[in-house]
Amino acid sequence: MAQQTKYLLDESQMPTHWYNLVPDLPEPPPPPLHPGTGQPVGPDDLAPLFPMGLILQEVSTEQYIEIPEAVREIYALWRPSPLYRARRLEKALDTPAHIYYKYEGVSPAGSHKPNTAVPQAYYNAVEGIRRLTTETGAGQWGTALAFACSLFDMTCEIWQVRASYDQKPYRRSMMEVFGGVVHPSPSELTEAGRKILADDPDSPGSLGIAISEAVEVAASSDDVRYALGSVLNHVLLHQTVIGEEAIRQLEMAGEMPDVVVGCVGGGSNFGGLAFPFIRENLAGNLNCEIRAVEPDACPTLTRGRYTYDFGDTAGMTPLLKMHTLGHDFVPDPIHSGGLRYHGMSPLISHVYELGLMTAEARPQTECFDAGVRFARTEGIVPAPEPTHALASAIAEAERCRETGEEKVILTALCGHGHLDLAAYDKYLAGEVVDFEYPQERIDDALTRLPDPQV
Amino acid sequence: MAQQTKYLLDESQMPTHWYNLVPDLPEPPPPPLHPGTGQPVGPDDLAPLFPMGLILQEVSTEQYIEIPEAVREIYALWRPSPLYRARRLEKALDTPAHIYYKYEGVSPAGSHKPNTAVPQAYYNAVEGIRRLTTETGAGQWGTALAFACSLFDMTCEIWQVRASYDQKPYRRSMMEVFGGVVHPSPSELTEAGRKILADDPDSPGSLGIAISEAVEVAASSDDVRYALGSVLNHVLLHQTVIGEEAIRQLEMAGEMPDVVVGCVGGGSNFGGLAFPFIRENLAGNLNCEIRAVEPDACPTLTRGRYTYDFGDTAGMTPLLKMHTLGHDFVPDPIHSGGLRYHGMSPLISHVYELGLMTAEARPQTECFDAGVRFARTEGIVPAPEPTHALASAIAEAERCRETGEEKVILTALCGHGHLDLAAYDKYLAGEVVDFEYPQERIDDALTRLPDPQV
Repeated sequence: MAQQTKYLLDESQMPTHWYNLVPDLPEPPPPPLHPGTGQPVGPDDLAPLFPMGLILQEVSTEQYIEIPEAVREIYALWRPSPLYRARRLEKALDTPAHIYYKYEGVSPAGSHKPNTAVPQAYYNAVEGIRRLTTETGAGQWGTALAFACSLFDMTCEIWQVRASYDQKPYRRSMMEVFGGVVHPSPSELTEAGRKILADDPDSPGSLGIAISEAVEVAASSDDVRYALGSVLNHVLLHQTVIGEEAIRQLEMAGEMPDVVVGCVGGGSNFGGLAFPFIRENLAGNLNCEIRAVEPDACPTLTRGRYTYDFGDTAGMTPLLKMHTLGHDFVPDPIHSGGLRYHGMSPLISHVYELGLMTAEARPQTECFDAGVRFARTEGIVPAPEPTHALASAIAEAERCRETGEEKVILTALCGHGHLDLAAYDKYLAGEVVDFEYPQERIDDALTRLPDPQV
Repeated sequence: MAQQTKYLLDESQMPTHWYNLVPDLPEPPPPPLHPGTGQPVGPDDLAPLFPMGLILQEVSTEQYIEIPEAVREIYALWRPSPLYRARRLEKALDTPAHIYYKYEGVSPAGSHKPNTAVPQAYYNAVEGIRRLTTETGAGQWGTALAFACSLFDMTCEIWQVRASYDQKPYRRSMMEVFGGVVHPSPSELTEAGRKILADDPDSPGSLGIAISEAVEVAASSDDVRYALGSVLNHVLLHQTVIGEEAIRQLEMAGEMPDVVVGCVGGGSNFGGLAFPFIRENLAGNLNCEIRAVEPDACPTLTRGRYTYDFGDTAGMTPLLKMHTLGHDFVPDPIHSGGLRYHGMSPLISHVYELGLMTAEARPQTECFDAGVRFARTEGIVPAPEPTHALASAIAEAERCRETGEEKVILTALCGHGHLDLAAYDKYLAGEVVDFEYPQERIDDALTRLPDPQV
């Protein structure tokens, strides 16, 4: 065959280090602040929730951090992940553009989330922690952490948003197959949960409530810690294996991208793909556009404010300087549960402010259309989240058809949609609608930003 | 890292030919017979249902048949599939055995079925056929054929057993994402379906009925053909890419198997894995045990009779000499829908009679237990079907722990269980039971074998 489809690395070519973008930036990101004092948060403030190994990564200014061998041995169950040239999609689009996608759906949990779940479980395990708590909405993160904990013989306790717990029983089953203990949230197991249930016994829950429950349990016990699946520096750090591998695989293909495009919710998949390419841009080795795509219904980067806000709805976290729609903002019920976050990774927000990347928002029906076109040409049914990046990649390829440009487009297919088929079902039945996000709701939520505003 | 986990081939190492076991056997398999005349069925008898390209493969005595380039280009979307060493499972079992698994769940449909769906669509397409019909029970085959048809711009019409259509909506959604047209069976669209519905408007359907509907539509129109996902020679032929790749990958690992073990329903996954190893055994290059594992509830090879019987329940197919439990046998409702077939591939039955392989049956609770142990060590949630082979591999590895033997065990993980999580849910809740298969039911069904008995 003349035309190559997949670019594979073998295990010996797996990255040995995670890449930390922070020291390469022209100025450092603003620090998180303690909401009471307005002072920067130090490692000790975070110790009740995270192991010191992860806290040191959170504040690290080292450019590269070695991946422990125990983590790399587990990564080898699915990494290096494949890079594909989407030749059949290109042909269907009749475009001169070259479209590549880095596929993270080959992981046991079906998404990029195990890239950070495994090291998070590992660093807790080496500090003697036997139990982790977390929250999950759509279920990808909970599945990944349950999988990771099973490998270190740790207990993983997951508060799953009640509505999702009831609507997506397969997700719960998958967490339980990996040995996870799943509670619908709000639950009777925490003060936060009991308080909500006292007010509303039928509460469908929210990510904010689930975070409160998981954090409460972790904070109240010395031998329990909490794990977060996105937003924070150490999480994005772990995900940089995606971009590092992609660079090596594109070298195999003899190409370098003109556009790197990823979907963005909390930012972990996008950062993992993009940061190594931003490094190459900053070093003058590349000059590619780095593009984040968010849902129209949750336009954090494109229409939010860059300011200090809470990371959770209940206001329990440190203040993070980021693009936010307001911490009590409730996005419309789009199917991309992983992109329904009011804020943004502070590091990505900072990179955006520095002008090192672009952002755009797209409506979900266009994204589902892209997902179906992708499935019918490339064979993989994508999760709804990465269809946002696919829609942008397809639009770029269609522009190239008009201009004749042979642009090289790289996108991250961060997960498969096997457990999201009910959403595709609704889309094919014409029941998926777009949400016009009203400016008044943004303006209103932003009136309730926390003090101090620094 | 000292220890390798995955053995990957690149696209240039993909097999260029399918392997046909027939000419290497000490005697040829008995031919299919026309039920009216008792005479061997010829190519012309099959022409209303299959394209000539596939019929010629069905009766071929060539040892190798070249894989068309158009098929190989599509195979490259997921092939060569990975071979894994199950090091974490070995460690958990504390066994000196080496366990390898060939993973076919990386295909777009999530199983080995696209290995034959793609060439079946291709050979129909080159003969100008624009529409294929088929049946599906659990849904793996229907998904694979819908995917394959989408790549050749063909219409794929699938009769899905009513009970499965209602209970597994995600499977139907996945077929529709690939552009498939799915009918619950029995349907009002065929005479066979209308007849059943007239008797029982609430009929849950069966694979036998669904086959009758799909065959009726294909046979009644010159430009429609029928496609079958297992049992026939050409289907098993296409699956031999599994075993051919596995041999090359084990060579990379510097090992050759002592035991090759696969699950067996109609036989396509088992034959695809095993036939190249049987060739090596026959040539004196290897001396490995070739072991088929079937469910206790559908013990075709271990307790069936080797005789001529119909391939379908309604008695519309040619007579096939095979191990059968009787064509009107209805297996208990185990979760491995892909293994609930009354008969067996005639070629595998013949190989079994020649003494070139062994067979055993296992209860489904033991298999689910193996599936959960596998998920918690290797990360992949297996489909219920291949957990039968995993249970056998684990039992073998546990024997090795007692004897100290360093046996090399190869098994085929023919699909993931992402759309079977409801079954795991029931298992974890203690609601999965085993079925003691009564001898009287076998004896009774075997009283209704067709004439002529040759």
